[in-house]
Amino acid sequence: MSSILLLHGPNLNLLGQREPEIYGHATLADYVANCTEWAREIGFDLEHLQSNHEGDLVDAIHSARGRHAAIVINAGAFTHYSWSLHDALATFHGPIIEVHISQPNAREPWRHTSVIAPVASGSIAGFGMLGYRLAIEAVSRIVR
Amino acid sequence: MSSILLLHGPNLNLLGQREPEIYGHATLADYVANCTEWAREIGFDLEHLQSNHEGDLVDAIHSARGRHAAIVINAGAFTHYSWSLHDALATFHGPIIEVHISQPNAREPWRHTSVIAPVASGSIAGFGMLGYRLAIEAVSRIVR
Amino acid sequence: MSSILLLHGPNLNLLGQREPEIYGHATLADYVANCTEWAREIGFDLEHLQSNHEGDLVDAIHSARGRHAAIVINAGAFTHYSWSLHDALATFHGPIIEVHISQPNAREPWRHTSVIAPVASGSIAGFGMLGYRLAIEAVSRIVR
Amino acid sequence: MSSILLLHGPNLNLLGQREPEIYGHATLADYVANCTEWAREIGFDLEHLQSNHEGDLVDAIHSARGRHAAIVINAGAFTHYSWSLHDALATFHGPIIEVHISQPNAREPWRHTSVIAPVASGSIAGFGMLGYRLAIEAVSRIVR
Amino acid sequence: MSSILLLHGPNLNLLGQREPEIYGHATLADYVANCTEWAREIGFDLEHLQSNHEGDLVDAIHSARGRHAAIVINAGAFTHYSWSLHDALATFHGPIIEVHISQPNAREPWRHTSVIAPVASGSIAGFGMLGYRLAIEAVSRIVR
Amino acid sequence: MSSILLLHGPNLNLLGQREPEIYGHATLADYVANCTEWAREIGFDLEHLQSNHEGDLVDAIHSARGRHAAIVINAGAFTHYSWSLHDALATFHGPIIEVHISQPNAREPWRHTSVIAPVASGSIAGFGMLGYRLAIEAVSRIVR
Amino acid sequence: MSSILLLHGPNLNLLGQREPEIYGHATLADYVANCTEWAREIGFDLEHLQSNHEGDLVDAIHSARGRHAAIVINAGAFTHYSWSLHDALATFHGPIIEVHISQPNAREPWRHTSVIAPVASGSIAGFGMLGYRLAIEAVSRIVR
Amino acid sequence: MSSILLLHGPNLNLLGQREPEIYGHATLADYVANCTEWAREIGFDLEHLQSNHEGDLVDAIHSARGRHAAIVINAGAFTHYSWSLHDALATFHGPIIEVHISQPNAREPWRHTSVIAPVASGSIAGFGMLGYRLAIEAVSRIVR
Amino acid sequence: MSSILLLHGPNLNLLGQREPEIYGHATLADYVANCTEWAREIGFDLEHLQSNHEGDLVDAIHSARGRHAAIVINAGAFTHYSWSLHDALATFHGPIIEVHISQPNAREPWRHTSVIAPVASGSIAGFGMLGYRLAIEAVSRIVR
Amino acid sequence: MSSILLLHGPNLNLLGQREPEIYGHATLADYVANCTEWAREIGFDLEHLQSNHEGDLVDAIHSARGRHAAIVINAGAFTHYSWSLHDALATFHGPIIEVHISQPNAREPWRHTSVIAPVASGSIAGFGMLGYRLAIEAVSRIVR
Amino acid sequence: MSSILLLHGPNLNLLGQREPEIYGHATLADYVANCTEWAREIGFDLEHLQSNHEGDLVDAIHSARGRHAAIVINAGAFTHYSWSLHDALATFHGPIIEVHISQPNAREPWRHTSVIAPVASGSIAGFGMLGYRLAIEAVSRIVR
Amino acid sequence: MSSILLLHGPNLNLLGQREPEIYGHATLADYVANCTEWAREIGFDLEHLQSNHEGDLVDAIHSARGRHAAIVINAGAFTHYSWSLHDALATFHGPIIEVHISQPNAREPWRHTSVIAPVASGSIAGFGMLGYRLAIEAVSRIVR
Repeated sequence: MSSILLLHGPNLNLLGQREPEIYGHATLADYVANCTEWAREIGFDLEHLQSNHEGDLVDAIHSARGRHAAIVINAGAFTHYSWSLHDALATFHGPIIEVHISQPNAREPWRHTSVIAPVASGSIAGFGMLGYRLAIEAVSRIVR
Repeated sequence: MSSILLLHGPNLNLLGQREPEIYGHATLADYVANCTEWAREIGFDLEHLQSNHEGDLVDAIHSARGRHAAIVINAGAFTHYSWSLHDALATFHGPIIEVHISQPNAREPWRHTSVIAPVASGSIAGFGMLGYRLAIEAVSRIVR
Repeated sequence: MSSILLLHGPNLNLLGQREPEIYGHATLADYVANCTEWAREIGFDLEHLQSNHEGDLVDAIHSARGRHAAIVINAGAFTHYSWSLHDALATFHGPIIEVHISQPNAREPWRHTSVIAPVASGSIAGFGMLGYRLAIEAVSRIVR
Repeated sequence: MSSILLLHGPNLNLLGQREPEIYGHATLADYVANCTEWAREIGFDLEHLQSNHEGDLVDAIHSARGRHAAIVINAGAFTHYSWSLHDALATFHGPIIEVHISQPNAREPWRHTSVIAPVASGSIAGFGMLGYRLAIEAVSRIVR
Repeated sequence: MSSILLLHGPNLNLLGQREPEIYGHATLADYVANCTEWAREIGFDLEHLQSNHEGDLVDAIHSARGRHAAIVINAGAFTHYSWSLHDALATFHGPIIEVHISQPNAREPWRHTSVIAPVASGSIAGFGMLGYRLAIEAVSRIVR
Repeated sequence: MSSILLLHGPNLNLLGQREPEIYGHATLADYVANCTEWAREIGFDLEHLQSNHEGDLVDAIHSARGRHAAIVINAGAFTHYSWSLHDALATFHGPIIEVHISQPNAREPWRHTSVIAPVASGSIAGFGMLGYRLAIEAVSRIVR
Repeated sequence: MSSILLLHGPNLNLLGQREPEIYGHATLADYVANCTEWAREIGFDLEHLQSNHEGDLVDAIHSARGRHAAIVINAGAFTHYSWSLHDALATFHGPIIEVHISQPNAREPWRHTSVIAPVASGSIAGFGMLGYRLAIEAVSRIVR
Repeated sequence: MSSILLLHGPNLNLLGQREPEIYGHATLADYVANCTEWAREIGFDLEHLQSNHEGDLVDAIHSARGRHAAIVINAGAFTHYSWSLHDALATFHGPIIEVHISQPNAREPWRHTSVIAPVASGSIAGFGMLGYRLAIEAVSRIVR
Repeated sequence: MSSILLLHGPNLNLLGQREPEIYGHATLADYVANCTEWAREIGFDLEHLQSNHEGDLVDAIHSARGRHAAIVINAGAFTHYSWSLHDALATFHGPIIEVHISQPNAREPWRHTSVIAPVASGSIAGFGMLGYRLAIEAVSRIVR
Repeated sequence: MSSILLLHGPNLNLLGQREPEIYGHATLADYVANCTEWAREIGFDLEHLQSNHEGDLVDAIHSARGRHAAIVINAGAFTHYSWSLHDALATFHGPIIEVHISQPNAREPWRHTSVIAPVASGSIAGFGMLGYRLAIEAVSRIVR
Repeated sequence: MSSILLLHGPNLNLLGQREPEIYGHATLADYVANCTEWAREIGFDLEHLQSNHEGDLVDAIHSARGRHAAIVINAGAFTHYSWSLHDALATFHGPIIEVHISQPNAREPWRHTSVIAPVASGSIAGFGMLGYRLAIEAVSRIVR
Repeated sequence: MSSILLLHGPNLNLLGQREPEIYGHATLADYVANCTEWAREIGFDLEHLQSNHEGDLVDAIHSARGRHAAIVINAGAFTHYSWSLHDALATFHGPIIEVHISQPNAREPWRHTSVIAPVASGSIAGFGMLGYRLAIEAVSRIVR
């Protein structure tokens, strides 16, 4: 089970094209390539799914049970209202790292509440792509 | 139209594996088998759908119009925020029974609000699998 | 201890006379007669108390301790503010079934909160007299 | 049915003794004597009940059904939380006049909400004993 | 100073034409004529002003100081937000009677709050035209 | 008037039997016996009433006027919603000591608000039976 | 890029069948046919998608980037909670017109909040099918 | 009755001079000239009133009863607190179109609530001067 | 443009007569005379308007544009709800000084919110007549 | 470890000088002298610290760990917002008694919430200096 | 006692270096020098303390009792949560002037509430350094 | 400026001794030693301050200006109410990393709000000591 599931929620497929002043110019492919590389360096495979469909993410979390050692998730807007994701993540037994590219607490009020934080092992926000590197490093240290 | 549509919302496919201290050890297959049997005893067919996709449940409710006599639904986490389900259920003309395995009012505050209760004919919560038996019995008595 | 205590709260003595478009035409006597019959069918005695006095209901719950196997309660308006009933029910060790004839969530906002639900084993709402039948059936299955 | 039921809620038995700077020096007996006289002048009997017991007031309202032409009620502190009284009054078909001796809106915030006003035909507050005279006069004009 | 100032706020000039199921068929002229007559019977002149202009009502209250013995006011929608009226009424030394034709507490939530009640001597609501009669009678008894 | 009225609200008759991990194993009789003894040591008689009926407690407070030097009250769940008790206690002229066996602020949110604290001379919470001893000692020192 | 994307959210496939007293008798096909005709009259193609799946709508908005000149959207119940749609629409550079058939502000409170209005160029509500004609006309004038 | 009443609330007389980055450079005269022309094209007279006085707008709405076929209103800041306008508009029997030049939902929170929307037939926001053209077109189609 | 517009809102015409324990004994004429004198000392004309009519104040602010160097305003009760004044003041380009005679934060809760403070250059509260002197001095220093 | 740490929060150094109608005329030195005496009578040393510095109190609580048998604390205004004190007290293993001289629940609303009560063993309020005597007595009985 | 205590709360030592677009370029030394000069002109000594320590400010206020004629305070962020400062200022008998350099009501919501305003004689906000001059002038006029 | 300032807020000096089930067994010295080592590995000096005094932390942040390249801060309970820290951090120009050992969102509601997150470059929560390692790594990558 030395693999990590990396999940991206809605609209993150547009990374690099959408509000670059907030999210930067790297594309989702860049993010995934980097994460794959970082994971490999520490001996993990990385599987990736981006979806704008809440149900796809829930399904992916379910199939991660017993197959992946950890989940790294940037749930996008679902962070703020998807109790289904909350319940899905609660069924996963390994570490769950919540990542946000920007700092939600410095943006609109509805972005200040995370419904998945209570079931995440840890949360990392505001570091851009670096946040993913930190998350993967965290996984490697927690899992071992 | 002597058939019942049984719907399960997100994460309920993991019944028996997820938080057994809350949800017990019976699997979703056990639930469906029992409900099918109970429905048959009172002369009803039972069709079942579990989905982690809100849209699938809405679609299923739509196609139930004119095809099923009643809906029994455990909407899982959608119970607490899916106004789409609320609007979909409002278009169905037969009885709608909302079922919850545990007692949501005894859990986290966000589980205390049901956005589908206002359009359900009746609600049954806290009885585990027995709640489904009560729901099916209720359907049989209301429909006749 | 094969007996059930059936409790009715304030104004339910007027069942059949009060707002029949909401509560139907059956009288409280009809309710009690039916429940007694249903209980007997499954081998239970049924004792009944209706009171408009919060203290009477609390007293009755106290004397049910060790004398009745289960409580079925429609607390009427007390449902929404009587923390005394909450505390009293919390002292009872058998199953407690909360019943409502109508669907409170589809009525005024103050009827959406139940202060006794957190201490009830299960809740059944919106089924009219049928709800009591379901409650008694539930008792019989839980107790055995 | 040419009679009026006059109801007083908790602590109003102490009228004349309790906070005279708010409630004045007239005793409850004075209130009842005056109201009886005023009712008689316009051809009504008046029956009176003061109780510190919510259930007694609910019972009295129930037995007023079909026996009294109108209810005049100063529910005291029950005004602010007794949904049982709300439901009981809703079952009465004649005029219901809510009376307050002082002006609750000029006192503590919790006295600003009346849970019985929505089911009262009319409300009169702030006139001291005069408010009862107005209430009885109102009854006589509405009933005719 | 044996005169009463009767004030009507916005939209009450349409009495009899507007939502007669709530406000009845009597016109504002009928109201004023009746009040004038009732006032005369008890030895008072009555001056009347209806205005849709908050400032006109404030001005009228100011000139009532020292000229009128009492104010009877149905402030219409201003009841719910005109703190200017609140402050104006607070400067008047005689009795102030707040009247409402319908029962605001039984209508939309924003009608449940009166910003003028805290400075009114008394409030009368829900009695239709009869409420004015009660108000004028109250004035006569308070002033003497 | 060298006597104290000790009042217990709803469900406290079950002390020793109900949730001993919160309330301990001493019974109400133990509490009363101890308090009687402690009162006697400092020269006071002690009269006791436990009731699950709000009205009984209000009645008892009324008859304490002029008969008892002080009131010690553990209002149980009434603490959190009985404005009738609030108004009743406000009519008593001697010291009123509010006692709680457990620390309500460390329990459910609805137990954090006391509607009787504003009219109590002092409040003592969290000391188990010792709290009553402190209350009685306080009475003795205040009254003298 | 002379084309418009018309989007319909959940349950709007039932237009004409669902609550016709609110939504009228025209079917979704009627809406689309009319809009196509109106768009053609002003020189625009119109592409249409109705979905009960939030993710489908997000996907469609993404592929509209660079392909459609404008979006006209009736998001149904998603209007009130889908922050994913909010974020998706924020990535589109052309005009976005929010349309509602009924007037949400005159219905249940939860329909009073639109989470997509802050990112819509303009909003049109309450005009039934006419609202779409206005929206298309608006598009044609804004785009030119 | 082939005429439209166009109403503008407070500060809109400064259109073109005030915050042009929000409201644009067209003056109120431009707005009125355009609307008059657009109304004429579809066979309607247009009468216009701008006022900073709530009462003037209420008066104008009253005199529109029976004289104008429809009202188009941009109530400016009154949109957010003038319940008098709400009540006045509720007395008008023809279509009422609420117009806003900017998108209030994208500005300060207090601009997100419209107290007149519940009594408007339809609302149009965010289209600048175009919104008026849409409103007039809507009127012409609704009235016929 | 060396002139100042001094504005007073509702009920301030009664200064000296109304609640002197809060507002003191100086009359509005005293205030205006002093302010005129203070303004003259620093080389400013002063124009004054007191009105109980919100629209009059809005009109006056509009005509101050380009005619007065600064506005000093005590908006009275309008401070707490008149968004029209807010919007009007926002159109004025010179300094705007909000003055209150008493300290609103030390009075009723509804006086704690100022809807005009966000558009005022500065606010001065609690200094009685002295506050106006400070305001005029502030104007003179800001304008130069 | 037979010693007690007595802590006083901000402004309590002014006891006897500050608002004597609320806090009485005894000085802090009087309080400490009495407490020292009372402690000695029951065999305890008493160490005292008053500070207006939140950090000093936190430091003192830390050094009490293992050195004092109990803490008696009147945190003054820190009671209502110092979560640091909350966390500090949570690290102490002996009994913690929260004392207030006056009854905070009878004063301003912001004094009704204690952020330290959830970690205090017990709370005593409203008894003036007597409250400290009760607290010390409580300590002696709990510790033994 | 012809001296003034000038107090500055946290972070104001960085005046001139921190967010100059809000606070300007003058340093704290400039502020103090100017205030000292202005005070001298009107015959007052000025003592100054800036501290980032809440307790230091409380201590300073205490020692100002009987030593200083007045306090001028810009409490910085303590303005919004330091109830200790509130209580400390309440013990001072001379005038207290609250000053803010910027206009807190035009900034983040948490800056809109001042917990010290209720105990300040007067408040001055939004005038930059000029506000201090006004405050000192106010002191001189109040004290004489 | 190749140095990092590591700050710890109140009660964190007790790390390893306080609630080890939440915070683990490592002491603050362990934390600092590890962080120093990690910082050195990437070429940074590390200066550390733990204080239970809000003002000390504010002072330290001020002196970090121009002396340290970055701040890593675990503000303990100050996280939830210290607006002074918020303002102090806002004056620092380098990266600020907020660290929490546990996951505050999974604990009491008052721990869900961070008043410093809006001014932190990034936040890391829930990783125990590992979180500091991630923070230091983040600093090294951001600063370069």
